[in-house]
Amino acid sequence: VTRVSLPAPDAFAALPATRRRIVAAAVDAFARRGFHATTTRDVALGAGLSPAGLYVHYASKTALLAEVSRIGHEAALGLVAAELGPQAPPGPAAERLRRTVETFTSWHARHHLVARVVQYELTALDPDDRADVVRLRREIEALVEAEVRRGVTDPHTTTRAVLSLCIDVARWYDPAGREAPDDVGRLYGTLVLRMLGASHQEDP
Amino acid sequence: VTRVSLPAPDAFAALPATRRRIVAAAVDAFARRGFHATTTRDVALGAGLSPAGLYVHYASKTALLAEVSRIGHEAALGLVAAELGPQAPPGPAAERLRRTVETFTSWHARHHLVARVVQYELTALDPDDRADVVRLRREIEALVEAEVRRGVTDPHTTTRAVLSLCIDVARWYDPAGREAPDDVGRLYGTLVLRMLGASHQEDP
Repeated sequence: VTRVSLPAPDAFAALPATRRRIVAAAVDAFARRGFHATTTRDVALGAGLSPAGLYVHYASKTALLAEVSRIGHEAALGLVAAELGPQAPPGPAAERLRRTVETFTSWHARHHLVARVVQYELTALDPDDRADVVRLRREIEALVEAEVRRGVTDPHTTTRAVLSLCIDVARWYDPAGREAPDDVGRLYGTLVLRMLGASHQEDP
Repeated sequence: VTRVSLPAPDAFAALPATRRRIVAAAVDAFARRGFHATTTRDVALGAGLSPAGLYVHYASKTALLAEVSRIGHEAALGLVAAELGPQAPPGPAAERLRRTVETFTSWHARHHLVARVVQYELTALDPDDRADVVRLRREIEALVEAEVRRGVTDPHTTTRAVLSLCIDVARWYDPAGREAPDDVGRLYGTLVLRMLGASHQEDP
């Protein structure tokens, strides 16, 4: 994993100011109304621009979705690679996996609007952009599956269950609720270690 | 739980033929393009009707969404109540919970289009309809939480994690993939029992 990948909102912070405003307006509109029901005019207004002003930066609504999806997936991969990739700090395997689930879960709570767009609008991407995103998703799955594989009979579907549990936080998470993103992350870290059974039990 | 609730597609089969065709066309359109981007004209065409012909049965696109959401939630509650409600057959608690997770999961795989509409378009419902659906969701959660509560330190969030795992199957499930809905259900039954730890271990 050689890509530079920072967690959002840092990843968005790396964009030039106007693009950052456009992307934020797009995330908000896509998450609330869905990609198909949003017009470029909606996004331009949300960013305080004219439609022509938006086209200077993004050639189409689909190009804008591709940018959100790319940044969101790179941020998610960055989190997972930091714990499970070649540069990850050494330590007990169960702790590595626990930290991965914690950060991946709390990211989906904290950035639930970005995550909803990224997860629910995959089919609206152009084929090339979708292929890029599928590659990023496979990298995430491969890193987690390499950890899960030890001692589990169905590592592929079990890996998908682990990631699915974390990702679905973006659907139900309510920032007005009583749980902070890190609270959900901590509980899920424990639940996943138990779910994986004896070979991944918490270190004694 | 006194509501008569049949699992879809049986629940939809109980509708008169024309309504059933309309609801099927609505599920397809809402799941593929999102509720906001779908017009009543799209749904009417999908059902082989004129827009005026559709209005005879449903006064608005929102009324149609309410019908899909009500039937979907009643079907889901019906599945859970059959295993965990007052009429549930007697037997070991762990087996009851396992069967609940199995059927709830495989339902979300088998009826993933209905489930996506039901889960992703809640905010588009009218307030009264949303209140009805929230009540159905609370009944599902309460039945599961009563099972999960034994021996778990954070039963509310743990219950949501269990349901979330099952529900998110609707997002990723691909009927062209290699797993049948019941395969996913069986694996998830085992994963959830492990996740809940010692007090819910599989019966010896």
